[in-house]
Amino acid sequence: MRTLAIDVMSGDLGASECVPGALLALARNPDLHLELVGNPAIIEPLLAKAESPVRARARIVTALDIVPMDELPRSAIRRRKASSMRIAVDRVKEGAASGCVSAGNTGALTAIAHFVLKTVPQVERAPIMSALPAAHGHAYMLDLGANVSATAEQLRQFALMGSIVARDVFGVAEPRVGLLNIGEEDIKGHETVQAAHALIAASGVRYLGFIEGDDIFSGEVDVVVTDGFTGNVALKSMEGLARLITDTLRAEFTRSIGTRVAALVARPVLKRVGATLDPRRYNGACMVGLRGVVVKSHGRADRTAFARAIETALTAAVSDVPGCVARALGAERQGS
Amino acid sequence: MRTLAIDVMSGDLGASECVPGALLALARNPDLHLELVGNPAIIEPLLAKAESPVRARARIVTALDIVPMDELPRSAIRRRKASSMRIAVDRVKEGAASGCVSAGNTGALTAIAHFVLKTVPQVERAPIMSALPAAHGHAYMLDLGANVSATAEQLRQFALMGSIVARDVFGVAEPRVGLLNIGEEDIKGHETVQAAHALIAASGVRYLGFIEGDDIFSGEVDVVVTDGFTGNVALKSMEGLARLITDTLRAEFTRSIGTRVAALVARPVLKRVGATLDPRRYNGACMVGLRGVVVKSHGRADRTAFARAIETALTAAVSDVPGCVARALGAERQGS
Repeated sequence: MRTLAIDVMSGDLGASECVPGALLALARNPDLHLELVGNPAIIEPLLAKAESPVRARARIVTALDIVPMDELPRSAIRRRKASSMRIAVDRVKEGAASGCVSAGNTGALTAIAHFVLKTVPQVERAPIMSALPAAHGHAYMLDLGANVSATAEQLRQFALMGSIVARDVFGVAEPRVGLLNIGEEDIKGHETVQAAHALIAASGVRYLGFIEGDDIFSGEVDVVVTDGFTGNVALKSMEGLARLITDTLRAEFTRSIGTRVAALVARPVLKRVGATLDPRRYNGACMVGLRGVVVKSHGRADRTAFARAIETALTAAVSDVPGCVARALGAERQGS
Repeated sequence: MRTLAIDVMSGDLGASECVPGALLALARNPDLHLELVGNPAIIEPLLAKAESPVRARARIVTALDIVPMDELPRSAIRRRKASSMRIAVDRVKEGAASGCVSAGNTGALTAIAHFVLKTVPQVERAPIMSALPAAHGHAYMLDLGANVSATAEQLRQFALMGSIVARDVFGVAEPRVGLLNIGEEDIKGHETVQAAHALIAASGVRYLGFIEGDDIFSGEVDVVVTDGFTGNVALKSMEGLARLITDTLRAEFTRSIGTRVAALVARPVLKRVGATLDPRRYNGACMVGLRGVVVKSHGRADRTAFARAIETALTAAVSDVPGCVARALGAERQGS
């Protein structure tokens, strides 16, 4: 049995998608218990429709404030102690929950998570990491936007943590690590990536060197390391392109009677392709390197995607990501 | 009549694709003349198959050296004076050609172009800019990788130049400009984008503020401003994703007899979608802000894509991009 604390009030769609998403995750995972953190007056009616065996594993934890999307990280720590986001993180700190999920303001969640839970020893900043579709299945990329920049040493830590999580949580034997740069040659890129290149090469991970953006999907690497600014822009750009492709396909297939017939015939195939690449399948980015499990859901997540983020948190909690990272970095310290 | 100097020896595929690409561009553009810069012993046999009216507009300019892909920018300036890349740029400087195209090492091309041609007054660094598919047709993004970083003032100049080129070359009335960041709220991002945000807002361009990666394709902006590191990673990531989608579609449509029939029926629609989004259609990134037209082709460009890059250079030369930028920035200086 696992209990997770879910901030159901945040994200662009709020409780109306987060609560049904939580119910979906409960229905699919019979050992899962959830604390739904937020305003009972809003949550209660949304729970009314749930079947009783599912409903029985959901408990409301009252939080009457929220963190607005434009709240500054420092102000979120100071002023939003009664918010659904803060209380969800507090529940992890208190040991009441094995992990938490929020679809809210990334900067605020990063700040609150660092402030309340702290990073494991040796880790300076916790990056967020997520699976992405790739030719061989998945690649795992970090940092996707928890921090706006990263030093060379922080990039080295990202490489170590990414490697550990890919191996211990996602079962990738000897994960291959690449560092994002604007050229594959050793001489390219700015000073930070150059310095990180040398540090990662000496860190003991299976390091393939610099990679370019298209290598994320090529199947040649398992872990993609970059700073949070670049990672977030790349992630969002891919989302935008995927949406453009989907919209263009839809428009072309509904142009005429002929194309509508073609759509009908092609549908099963297109559906399979869509399912493989559906960004909702990859929702739930893990904040790695904290003394607790924190998962960031996409702000625009619908119920399907939000349920996936909860399942990502469940996997991270069951696999004990914080413990894996602490043990591996502790061993590194003793070894050095 | 326009003459362009084409480095046909560079890029991953070299003369075997660049020369046929040049012939393709000549066949489609009856007023175009090309100087094919490179090794005559390699180029001559590739020209043999061309029809005489096309062949008559191609002239070989001898260059026996090349710039290797791993050459450092500074070393390329010093040591590669007899390379095809350098001589193509020299032809522009000498006034023999109205512009040049190379598929070679981006760092070396940027360095050589800055060294030989110089930037127009007021411009510190020339970014590379390219069209990308978007919901409303195209968006124009810069810098796609000419420079590994950018100051706030340089980002302001990118916004101005991008706006001018979108208007004067691509006919976008009042281009809407966005600055890439990891959140749309005014308070997000690192210091450089924060400072650039204020500078661009005061620059007189039609500035919409911060945008996120997915907005590149949404149709809400015409010009996307970012530094060369972020821009290049985003561009390559999108290319990688597009390839993954194409490969997944191909694999699913060739799985069984049933799916092959579906493929046959859906083919015309998929072809139209593919044509809209084909990255080869968007090949040819313009180096903006130099005293001459320099176009960077994708290193992996095949002949179709390379011909497109030559046509981008032709458009830039006919529209006099260097003059447009110089006049607009000169007027800004007088106005201020």
